[in-house]
Amino acid sequence: MKELSERSGVPVPSIKYYLREGLLDPGEATGATQARYDGRHVERLRLIRVLREIGDVPVARIAAVVRAVEDESLPLQDLLATAHHALGPEPPEGQPSTTRGEVLGHLRAAGWDISTKAPALDVLAAALDALRTMWGPDVGPEVFDRYAAAAFDIASTELDSVDATGGRSATVQQIIVGTVVFEQALVALRRLAQEHHSHRRFASGDAG
Amino acid sequence: MKELSERSGVPVPSIKYYLREGLLDPGEATGATQARYDGRHVERLRLIRVLREIGDVPVARIAAVVRAVEDESLPLQDLLATAHHALGPEPPEGQPSTTRGEVLGHLRAAGWDISTKAPALDVLAAALDALRTMWGPDVGPEVFDRYAAAAFDIASTELDSVDATGGRSATVQQIIVGTVVFEQALVALRRLAQEHHSHRRFASGDAG
Repeated sequence: MKELSERSGVPVPSIKYYLREGLLDPGEATGATQARYDGRHVERLRLIRVLREIGDVPVARIAAVVRAVEDESLPLQDLLATAHHALGPEPPEGQPSTTRGEVLGHLRAAGWDISTKAPALDVLAAALDALRTMWGPDVGPEVFDRYAAAAFDIASTELDSVDATGGRSATVQQIIVGTVVFEQALVALRRLAQEHHSHRRFASGDAG
Repeated sequence: MKELSERSGVPVPSIKYYLREGLLDPGEATGATQARYDGRHVERLRLIRVLREIGDVPVARIAAVVRAVEDESLPLQDLLATAHHALGPEPPEGQPSTTRGEVLGHLRAAGWDISTKAPALDVLAAALDALRTMWGPDVGPEVFDRYAAAAFDIASTELDSVDATGGRSATVQQIIVGTVVFEQALVALRRLAQEHHSHRRFASGDAG
């Protein structure tokens, strides 16, 4: 276990905790106090570490993702939804059901093939409600159209680069990393790009 | 104050709390227990409500944004950085300084005009460190290039639509709403678009 800790960068007490919580298979017992762990344990621990450190994902939610990965009866196309559900932000409390239906209808009319249960719909509906709080009730879901177009292209490239031939576990790991790590990167890059463009625009506005 | 609460949708005890914390100017006193509030109070309260409900932004951070908005000596091009700093995720603990320098250098080489202090650089560096944990040390900052290109275009359109003629307060409100609300929308839309594309790809892959 000491070696596993060194190779994964996860402290021994955390490994013991993950074993107890079922996030990690027990190693093959080789004695009363010894067990053999393999490369899959290292890989799993690195995934958990990334989710904990970068995504700040609670252990219970990681456990839900792990269960889904290991449930071979769950079709691959449902895994992404499960990962999103487990890794996503909590949907806001209460049911903004009218707005939710509005954004779903708007995206479906644009040809998006998405389930009614997608937790991201709650987030999008809450964002539209927020804009209406600020700008009035006339704001419609088309306010998101340019973001939807950009997101559509990004996601298409992302799914193109998922290599489904590497087996279920590798595919799932790619999807989870994509969901958590590249989401953080995209948000950070948008803020940096805003800074770049605002330097250009407001600075030249002051000068002229 | 009761009317202010009704118009803004913020409960009276919260309004009193925001007054104590300096998030809101006191109204014009019209008697011992009465004060007059105007449209700016309503607007400010709606902004606070959105930040609290959608962005889950702590009151202390909202106070930092409010101070920056009201500090007329702060140039407009610095306000965005201040808002990002106050509204952004906490930078990860510890200093991933080598990686941070790498991503900054990579973006500057691509022509991005960004400050060394931008908190989003910490987020981006942490994302790169996470990818290296998973995929090995050879992953370079160019792994983010397609996201950077998309973010660059999104931010350009966003800044084009900021109407700086409406006065400092209106501009700042647009920037804050853009930072918090459209960020949530973009993240949600990317997840929904991933779901759409994964339905298409994995489902057709299964079928043949």
